[in-house]
Amino acid sequence: MTKTAITPTRQENYPEWYQQVIAAADLAEASPVRGCMVIKPWGYAIWEAMQRDLDQRIKATGHVNAYFPLLIPLSYLEREAKHVAGFAKECAVVTHHRLEANEEGRLIPAGKLEEPYVIRPTSETIIGEMFAKWVQSYRDLPLLINQWANIMRWEMRTRLFLRTTEFLWQEGHTVHETKQEAVEETLKMLAVYAEFCENILAMPVIKGEKTASERFPGAVNTYCIEAMMQDKKALQAGTSHFLGQNFSKASHIEFLNQAGERQFAWTTSWGVSTRLIGSLIMVHSDDDGLVLPPKIAPEQIVILPIYRNETDRSKVLTYCQQLQQELQGLNYHHQPLRVKIDDRDLRGGDKNWQWVKKGVPVRLEIGLRDIDNQAVFMAQRHLPVSQKQSVLRNEFVATVTSLLDTIQNALLVKAQDYLQANTKEINTLAEFNEFFNGEGGFASCYALDDPAIEEFIKPLKVSARCIPFEQTKEAGICIFTGKKVGYKTIFAKAY
Amino acid sequence: MTKTAITPTRQENYPEWYQQVIAAADLAEASPVRGCMVIKPWGYAIWEAMQRDLDQRIKATGHVNAYFPLLIPLSYLEREAKHVAGFAKECAVVTHHRLEANEEGRLIPAGKLEEPYVIRPTSETIIGEMFAKWVQSYRDLPLLINQWANIMRWEMRTRLFLRTTEFLWQEGHTVHETKQEAVEETLKMLAVYAEFCENILAMPVIKGEKTASERFPGAVNTYCIEAMMQDKKALQAGTSHFLGQNFSKASHIEFLNQAGERQFAWTTSWGVSTRLIGSLIMVHSDDDGLVLPPKIAPEQIVILPIYRNETDRSKVLTYCQQLQQELQGLNYHHQPLRVKIDDRDLRGGDKNWQWVKKGVPVRLEIGLRDIDNQAVFMAQRHLPVSQKQSVLRNEFVATVTSLLDTIQNALLVKAQDYLQANTKEINTLAEFNEFFNGEGGFASCYALDDPAIEEFIKPLKVSARCIPFEQTKEAGICIFTGKKVGYKTIFAKAY
Repeated sequence: MTKTAITPTRQENYPEWYQQVIAAADLAEASPVRGCMVIKPWGYAIWEAMQRDLDQRIKATGHVNAYFPLLIPLSYLEREAKHVAGFAKECAVVTHHRLEANEEGRLIPAGKLEEPYVIRPTSETIIGEMFAKWVQSYRDLPLLINQWANIMRWEMRTRLFLRTTEFLWQEGHTVHETKQEAVEETLKMLAVYAEFCENILAMPVIKGEKTASERFPGAVNTYCIEAMMQDKKALQAGTSHFLGQNFSKASHIEFLNQAGERQFAWTTSWGVSTRLIGSLIMVHSDDDGLVLPPKIAPEQIVILPIYRNETDRSKVLTYCQQLQQELQGLNYHHQPLRVKIDDRDLRGGDKNWQWVKKGVPVRLEIGLRDIDNQAVFMAQRHLPVSQKQSVLRNEFVATVTSLLDTIQNALLVKAQDYLQANTKEINTLAEFNEFFNGEGGFASCYALDDPAIEEFIKPLKVSARCIPFEQTKEAGICIFTGKKVGYKTIFAKAY
Repeated sequence: MTKTAITPTRQENYPEWYQQVIAAADLAEASPVRGCMVIKPWGYAIWEAMQRDLDQRIKATGHVNAYFPLLIPLSYLEREAKHVAGFAKECAVVTHHRLEANEEGRLIPAGKLEEPYVIRPTSETIIGEMFAKWVQSYRDLPLLINQWANIMRWEMRTRLFLRTTEFLWQEGHTVHETKQEAVEETLKMLAVYAEFCENILAMPVIKGEKTASERFPGAVNTYCIEAMMQDKKALQAGTSHFLGQNFSKASHIEFLNQAGERQFAWTTSWGVSTRLIGSLIMVHSDDDGLVLPPKIAPEQIVILPIYRNETDRSKVLTYCQQLQQELQGLNYHHQPLRVKIDDRDLRGGDKNWQWVKKGVPVRLEIGLRDIDNQAVFMAQRHLPVSQKQSVLRNEFVATVTSLLDTIQNALLVKAQDYLQANTKEINTLAEFNEFFNGEGGFASCYALDDPAIEEFIKPLKVSARCIPFEQTKEAGICIFTGKKVGYKTIFAKAY
């Protein structure tokens, strides 16, 4: 049996493996604040890379960034009944605005607020309040705004990146003249997310619509992208909501339309969060730690100089630095290649393993012999650790960007194959039960979008993930109710 | 008298002029959340430009970004006595973690927390808690971390950008082996801020040390950069704190030094915030609205097509688009030129004035006659609005980057001249009183760093801004106490 860098392996204990990969790659850790994580530099650099790419896509589709208050007056939250019902149980509430020493000299809250605030669990209501001022006429529409922000939902069971009390995200909020335009916007942004996941994170996703019971509180339709983790569970990687006129009515977003009549506007909202880092980890990583697709890796290439004494050191470092400079002069995916030299005073093996665990796509070991041969000794993170090869230096430079493309693509194909291999057409309830009591995965089956089916799926800890866009339009028989239904739904256990 | 776009003018009512510039340029507005602002797209784009540049400088000096919790346990804040004393009066306190309907059906806070949290007014204590885990040996040092985050201080009197309950900032937090290294870090980052302000914001600043009474709560030394607004008041644009071992003792940041002994580390912290946008507005803007230095302008050039009918429209737009494309292919300050075509259906005069008020450095009006002449009709924001000139199109393209440099430099020189013209050497208390009862500005005078001088300056609403680094080292007589003192201090009214 091969020794792995991560204990336990995926096979042995998937949830614990996940935690250990995060620790080994130094991505994040729990903080003393209940359910809140600290995103450490390597994890945050991944988030920055995600933000950079996604921000460009959001702007390229006509949106602009703005910033709205962290706090929401309690009364605003109450304006949309389903919305408040959905979030009331997990709101951090600010009730005081200063601290005062009590008789024992300990600080206690003072300066009680007349109306408490909640820390935003999402910003529809506070942004809606502003939009109501900004939108007067159809000439003010569409209003296409995005916000990068922190969010707080007081979750009872938390897990790093996947579910934390505080998390970072972007939330798009848009206002439209017509229903059709708002629906198109909702779907356009879902497509942006899907493309980002597939193209940048090398993570295939299934686009679809949430069933009624999984809808965003207050939305008319919630669309989502669902990805499959390596334990075959689903992870909702992003959502886009068509809010109809629910929030424009709650916040009085009204405008004079082209016919000169006052009407309520149509709104949307859509978001992805630091949760994406969790999915990135779980889709690609292996029993040696994190595996990063080149397009999202904070460093794409790490150079490890190898030498025994000071004379060698200077010679090796010069060679490495020249190589680094040349590589940094190349562009990959519209940006200069990200290349790091790790010259820390550490045992070579330890150093190499650190970068394996951190998931850097390409490692180059360079010693005197490599210099003599005008070569580099190359390892690729997605291949077995021991599989290293000597490549002529100039050849490496000439082919490195296509190598990174090859790696990026290999990760995507592998994940696509996994998704396909573990998605099964299910035709009867018996099969359904067998599937989820056994191997599991994504079950695609005819099923009504009806609360009545909950009794069949809940005991299996399974939920409806989405009604996928891509499916034949043939009707079939719901495996739970026996009724006729015009679409299939994907079911899975989920994060 | 010339009509101005902003009413009142700077002369008539400076504070109100400031608010009106913000409204006219559509930078921000008050929100329904007490003291919190909404940063609107044009204002946020300025913040993004600041972030982009500053983030590069912070990384170029060896720091990496990370993210720490929004909430701080009350007990952490108490660990450093001066620190908590400084912030206790302005903390938003989270006391509950859900909402519940009362008998009348209204939502009320529920789920009382055992220990309340405060929303971070600054993060020394929560970051210190993590650093104590991360730092074990001198090999872990220096630890050089930066965070971009939102901050909350419950201010009683707020003003857009200058003083708001919530604001955005970056906060650097570093840990060092020796006192000297920590002091050097503190000064290095102050220099980074000063260079950023002068080079990018075209805003001259005075670097210096805060007097004891103006020090950051818990710091050993606070260094700052002070800028002069057009009403001659000072604005503290950034601070850098040498924290000594105060916070390492409070948070137990200890390490094994090279001699194998446990010792407390030396820490620093430093930050700039969205307040910088306030200073940017007040340093450069005029009675027609915002004036933006090219390096920080979200759009550096705006092209205004002028036509009367559809045939002309297509011809003019084609010419404009080709010009835009060519300009976007140029680099200015390491980035593609930012060029916008405004083809909205608005009266030409209104459109032109909107961009004047938004402060875009260069405006190009282009109509049929300009096309016939292969020319552009150019206006520069920092020159009088009516001063427009026809320039050959190709000449404009060939010289545009040096034109932007000229504008950038002209704004800096103007601000430097203003600062110099309104800084006065003051030698007696009588002169001091006369200065601040009259014209005002920056008063440079011998003065002890001693609370005893408060009684002389407070009635004038003046404060010690800093003890500037750049000054002759000759001793003199304190104008307040008559005692001998080895340095001069700058006093001013301040924001």
